[in-house]
Amino acid sequence: MSNLGLRNKVLVFPFETDFSYVALVPQKDMALQAFTLCLRVATELPEERQIILFAYRTSDYDELNVWREKDGRVSFYMSGDGTFYHLPPLSTFRTSLCLTWESRTGLAAFWVEGKRSTYQVYKPGHSIRPKGTVLLGQDPDKHLGGLEATQSFVGELTDLNMWDFVLSRSLIQAWHYGHKIPKGNIFDWATIKYELSGNVMVVDDD
Amino acid sequence: MSNLGLRNKVLVFPFETDFSYVALVPQKDMALQAFTLCLRVATELPEERQIILFAYRTSDYDELNVWREKDGRVSFYMSGDGTFYHLPPLSTFRTSLCLTWESRTGLAAFWVEGKRSTYQVYKPGHSIRPKGTVLLGQDPDKHLGGLEATQSFVGELTDLNMWDFVLSRSLIQAWHYGHKIPKGNIFDWATIKYELSGNVMVVDDD
Amino acid sequence: MSNLGLRNKVLVFPFETDFSYVALVPQKDMALQAFTLCLRVATELPEERQIILFAYRTSDYDELNVWREKDGRVSFYMSGDGTFYHLPPLSTFRTSLCLTWESRTGLAAFWVEGKRSTYQVYKPGHSIRPKGTVLLGQDPDKHLGGLEATQSFVGELTDLNMWDFVLSRSLIQAWHYGHKIPKGNIFDWATIKYELSGNVMVVDDD
Repeated sequence: MSNLGLRNKVLVFPFETDFSYVALVPQKDMALQAFTLCLRVATELPEERQIILFAYRTSDYDELNVWREKDGRVSFYMSGDGTFYHLPPLSTFRTSLCLTWESRTGLAAFWVEGKRSTYQVYKPGHSIRPKGTVLLGQDPDKHLGGLEATQSFVGELTDLNMWDFVLSRSLIQAWHYGHKIPKGNIFDWATIKYELSGNVMVVDDD
Repeated sequence: MSNLGLRNKVLVFPFETDFSYVALVPQKDMALQAFTLCLRVATELPEERQIILFAYRTSDYDELNVWREKDGRVSFYMSGDGTFYHLPPLSTFRTSLCLTWESRTGLAAFWVEGKRSTYQVYKPGHSIRPKGTVLLGQDPDKHLGGLEATQSFVGELTDLNMWDFVLSRSLIQAWHYGHKIPKGNIFDWATIKYELSGNVMVVDDD
Repeated sequence: MSNLGLRNKVLVFPFETDFSYVALVPQKDMALQAFTLCLRVATELPEERQIILFAYRTSDYDELNVWREKDGRVSFYMSGDGTFYHLPPLSTFRTSLCLTWESRTGLAAFWVEGKRSTYQVYKPGHSIRPKGTVLLGQDPDKHLGGLEATQSFVGELTDLNMWDFVLSRSLIQAWHYGHKIPKGNIFDWATIKYELSGNVMVVDDD
């Protein structure tokens, strides 16, 4: 069931389901005091529809969830209340989206097309716990279960990379423009280990 | 009545009518398992007005119709229910619009100004039937008849090209920017065979 | 308490408070018959929220206040009624904003991303009085007091510079693009003297 590497590939989630997802296997333990998560995403789901963009859950906690909320804001949550950003809307065209956070200061920002949002201070001192599961396409309300179609992702995801540190502005911009930057040490799209479940297509990126 | 070639020409449909259209004669049989259709279009019709952009009909079926719908979405239909896309609105400025579809996977996308919409999966395994008629400006509800002014096109169309395969991203972008790419093997604007009916003007493109 | 220099630093005001501000100490007396004030600002405060962007107050007067108003316009006030401009909305991404005014003609304009607004004629013959206090983050209703959370600034401010004359268009554009231009002779961000109060973070600009 386990596959390796998605270089120049796109994940297409063609329909709303409560059973289609992609599980990602990290290259290293996800005990994190900082991270950069980058991906490219396109969706035609209506603005008022909640959408899960990234879910990392351990048995008791939503460790790191990224959402597009009902009110159009983009948010992320680590073990409890989240923090919310007004960003340009997701659309049928691909948006390059990164999220950076570091525990020391709590500084957290989204980066859209290489441009940083206003910093917010979110959970300084917090740590993300290891030994959970990363899902794309669904939000598990418990570890590996409790999926809901009305929160599912429909559209395309590609080029997901994750680092256990905060990338500089110039590296995030370089990634946005498709230039080479240091490979993600948690997830590297070119060599990512993943498992498909349900109706998800792996399509050439062209 | 039949004319040849529209290089550097624009078709202007100045008024709302139920009798103005341009019939296009394909270079080859339109039995299709895949296609790329590109054109440039400008209209000032209000957002809530249905507009036919391209109609290919055989005696019993709307084989391939492209619409701007009442709700502003752009859609296409092959022999029955259609599929719908949220694209940037058509406007008084020219929009470059392509549509690609292949039967094998069903992957279907619009391309606006060279940027691809999110893929939708639409009628995998389907074939478009040959021996019909292509009209610009009107939607025939039966073969060569049943035209309605409230669905007609008003505005400008130019540079329509069609291929019986899916063009790559780089070729679609090259077409968008006006660079030379392989000629359409179904329709090639520079040498296209067409018949004018009613009030349609052929105008120099500048 | 007094600090020196903010080269490559950003002031982050993470929360709405009535006690967080940064006081700026000018390099010279602020008796002014003309000025250029430039800064970069990002905020996620809702459009209908009043926001103080810059406040210079003497004991009896608001000498020079710059606001984002409840109706979304950007305004400035010198000792009484203000003048109002329709500018592109402030957002989560950084906006480069300058303000120029000269007493001789009264010509006053905002510059957004290097582009000038329409001129307004505002208080020709007026002079700004010296010996006041400049605050970022709060609007003092009296000298050094009377702060209100609902007018406070939340977001990021950086690269604030001020000159006692009107910069040319080409210099303002050069500043916008981050090129070197003559240092502000009232405030120069690289060497600015400032005092932090309450919850304001000084963060590396990256």
